[in-house]
Amino acid sequence: MELDEDLKQFLEKIMAFANKTGIAYRTGDIYGGLAGFWDFGPIGVEIKNRIKDAWWTEFVRNRDDIVGYEGAIITHPKVWEASGHLSSFTDPLIFCEGKCKKKHRLDHLVEDQLHIQSEHLDLEGMRELVLKEGLICPECGGKLGKPITFNLMFKTQVGPIQDSASTVYLRPENAQLIFSGFRNVIDSTRVKIPFGIAQSGIVFRNEISPRNFLFRVREYELMEFEYFTDPQKTNDCPVFEDVNETQVNIYSRKEQTDKISDDFVPMSIQKAWDDQIFKNKWQAYWLATFNNWFTDKMGINGNKLRFRQHLESELSHYALDTWDIEYQYKFGWKELMGCANRTQYDLEQHQIHSKTKLHFSETDETGVKRYVPYVVAEPSVGLGRILLTILADGYQEETVNDRKRVVLKIHPSLAPYDVAVFPLQRKPQILAKAQDIFKFLRTQGFTVNFDDGGSIGKRYRRHDEIGTPFCVTVDFDTLEDENITIRDRDSMQQTRIPIEKLVEELKNLRNNYLAAKMI
Amino acid sequence: MELDEDLKQFLEKIMAFANKTGIAYRTGDIYGGLAGFWDFGPIGVEIKNRIKDAWWTEFVRNRDDIVGYEGAIITHPKVWEASGHLSSFTDPLIFCEGKCKKKHRLDHLVEDQLHIQSEHLDLEGMRELVLKEGLICPECGGKLGKPITFNLMFKTQVGPIQDSASTVYLRPENAQLIFSGFRNVIDSTRVKIPFGIAQSGIVFRNEISPRNFLFRVREYELMEFEYFTDPQKTNDCPVFEDVNETQVNIYSRKEQTDKISDDFVPMSIQKAWDDQIFKNKWQAYWLATFNNWFTDKMGINGNKLRFRQHLESELSHYALDTWDIEYQYKFGWKELMGCANRTQYDLEQHQIHSKTKLHFSETDETGVKRYVPYVVAEPSVGLGRILLTILADGYQEETVNDRKRVVLKIHPSLAPYDVAVFPLQRKPQILAKAQDIFKFLRTQGFTVNFDDGGSIGKRYRRHDEIGTPFCVTVDFDTLEDENITIRDRDSMQQTRIPIEKLVEELKNLRNNYLAAKMI
Repeated sequence: MELDEDLKQFLEKIMAFANKTGIAYRTGDIYGGLAGFWDFGPIGVEIKNRIKDAWWTEFVRNRDDIVGYEGAIITHPKVWEASGHLSSFTDPLIFCEGKCKKKHRLDHLVEDQLHIQSEHLDLEGMRELVLKEGLICPECGGKLGKPITFNLMFKTQVGPIQDSASTVYLRPENAQLIFSGFRNVIDSTRVKIPFGIAQSGIVFRNEISPRNFLFRVREYELMEFEYFTDPQKTNDCPVFEDVNETQVNIYSRKEQTDKISDDFVPMSIQKAWDDQIFKNKWQAYWLATFNNWFTDKMGINGNKLRFRQHLESELSHYALDTWDIEYQYKFGWKELMGCANRTQYDLEQHQIHSKTKLHFSETDETGVKRYVPYVVAEPSVGLGRILLTILADGYQEETVNDRKRVVLKIHPSLAPYDVAVFPLQRKPQILAKAQDIFKFLRTQGFTVNFDDGGSIGKRYRRHDEIGTPFCVTVDFDTLEDENITIRDRDSMQQTRIPIEKLVEELKNLRNNYLAAKMI
Repeated sequence: MELDEDLKQFLEKIMAFANKTGIAYRTGDIYGGLAGFWDFGPIGVEIKNRIKDAWWTEFVRNRDDIVGYEGAIITHPKVWEASGHLSSFTDPLIFCEGKCKKKHRLDHLVEDQLHIQSEHLDLEGMRELVLKEGLICPECGGKLGKPITFNLMFKTQVGPIQDSASTVYLRPENAQLIFSGFRNVIDSTRVKIPFGIAQSGIVFRNEISPRNFLFRVREYELMEFEYFTDPQKTNDCPVFEDVNETQVNIYSRKEQTDKISDDFVPMSIQKAWDDQIFKNKWQAYWLATFNNWFTDKMGINGNKLRFRQHLESELSHYALDTWDIEYQYKFGWKELMGCANRTQYDLEQHQIHSKTKLHFSETDETGVKRYVPYVVAEPSVGLGRILLTILADGYQEETVNDRKRVVLKIHPSLAPYDVAVFPLQRKPQILAKAQDIFKFLRTQGFTVNFDDGGSIGKRYRRHDEIGTPFCVTVDFDTLEDENITIRDRDSMQQTRIPIEKLVEELKNLRNNYLAAKMI
């Protein structure tokens, strides 16, 4: 319970910070909010846009083997029938028939009160345990009713007549849009196997108990892709050498179940592959690639990342093997990203249900080969979870000259503003010069904020809080010597340089941010 | 009916083209599709992303007076109670009780069959007309039943208990998220009046009859902002001079109702303001600003744009004055963008319903002034509608050497690829050189496609179809003289230049695209 209390306090601090700085607010806040739904404010939107853009640039725009997709949110009901979501994307629920009338996750009750793993029990099995063991409501001690399975998909009706024929669902994942659109993509592009199809989009899950700020929500943006290979060549990964030296922290089933060590084992991804820790080489490749993206582009501390393999009992109905990249928050290790090996399961299901061939055709020296492609990896990461990780990692309270300084130490390429420009005083000549520099920086592709409100110290604090990495001050001397002062957010060091070198210097500081941090 | 047939044929051609090139497909296509919902393929997603990014850069990132917002899709129900959507966002429907059982828009029946304007009639009034005039089903001649009002908002339930307390709605517009989040934005930022709050996001409308490809759909991305002023200074628009010379085509109520001319009147926006055609100067400013954005950044033909004022009978319940920017499609003038003057209506409604002060406080020499800001303009444009306009405008069939060429003439900064690189032949040295250039262009921020499949002619046709503005070919001579050939999509002209000038040349060609087109 101690950990939970820490977690709660930590998240409350981050939430208050996010609210105050315009990162995130409760949706419909003036009406008391709506549990599990969040709005993003001016600062939050900019950071989110930059994370999303970085993901898309890295994994779609600048790759030759991945193309983009954007499926509808309201989706054809047959898609979820074929995928198994209509029958399997459920939680078991039980209601108190006593005083409190509260609802409970039945699997959680069984695990918490009886210490029995619930994964292999069906609803009836759990119901029998309730009766046999005399389980009661943990809130009020009341009698528990008949359990139900609750589907986590939100449903709605299309058109004015409300019957089952018009019932549709809000997508709980992007993956099925990619699978159901697979035929169209291969017919209208010239993709060559192996290849991926990527989608970033908002998904919806009717969670019973949303909680922990952006951690468990009912609506969130999910960035994911499906990576398809020839089913007979799932380990043919010629690009593995691009990442083979990546150092990663392995927390496989062995560490988790044998309990030889409670901790992960650091090693290179090459060694992990050689030691047969992974079943699939492409999956190892993608995990290492994302590890590098999190550290190099998102600025996340690599020592706080580990690869955790799912236990057999945790695997989804479609997955052969799944690994999470977890992050060590102040309150413990939690999933940052999942990466499942989905096999041919989904395409085969859609092929059966739609009676449409979902084959890929390949011509080589031996003739035409046709097969249903195999999904070796599905790297899937929530945008809000990256945002929360960056906030959790970057939020710092420091004491400077006996006063508290709150600073958001995020990677400069994710900051809402690249740079802020301050006139030291509100004198016409200084204002004009500062405006010139401000406008010039915009033409150079920087996102710039002009701030002339209050003392310089106040302006620094304001920009420290929202993570602006560099502040440029124009003063009286600037009018004479054409020099300005650049102030660094993290070190608070100030450097005086000529205006003509400003653009180059800002680019250097941004590009060398991680290297400088490590010194 | 002739126009409708033209429209249908035209849209079918565009749809087939979009499907073939990977721009858009029916969602759940392998299951027969879902009316009013579309998926976007690899090419469509890139074009959409570029349109959206251009909008955000122009109206949020590079403006000092507009900040971004991103509200939830599933929204607090009180928001829609306060806004009036729960009671007023409805269509009147009537069902055939005869053979066909079809549903009809009752207002359309009254207008089409009785030639009576239906705007001022309530459901009972229309019902009386049906009985009095003996209206029958236009499909089968059957008897018509009792009419109902049908709310266009999709609804769903949050949490496992389905009662009215947990009923929520998918947003039909972004505006109400901005209004309900207004308090949080002004509390967490330092915006100064006048200012705007912008949101681009997917909205949902349960249209009775979705049709015309991306024109009338049930789910689409809407880019809009609310621009707030002091209610006593709604015409204080110091930036008007930035646009005052803009030439626009005015189609006010006078042209529409007096029928002096069936056509718009071209004039400068300054003259239109001086002639008191607009009630509000900021609204005129924003319309002119968007006119320029459509022509300069979206590459849309300005001669095909006009500003049409809504008739009194068309105005929404919250609007004092609304103007559409319409585009002249092959099948007639249709709305591209709307721009309503929403007054203080929405903030006042939320203030009453939430019992929260939605005042803005301003301190000047006379002291503190408090007021509910006034929305002078809400420029609101669908991303899919811009995409469709660009396709409609840019899709061209030409005859080149007796063969048909399909070319998508879109602005280079909206093309899915900035440039394609071709090795003339698949010889190792040429391939390597072409790969070098391809990778180099990527480091310079270009979106590049490498294409070595089939003859050069085929590759040109392929890239013409998806709008790639420039193709660069590497041949044997390149290995000797370090020159490559740039081929222009629209003119098909080929120019040989040194590799070292390629980046500069590509930037010049892109920046001068519109100017070159006009020569």
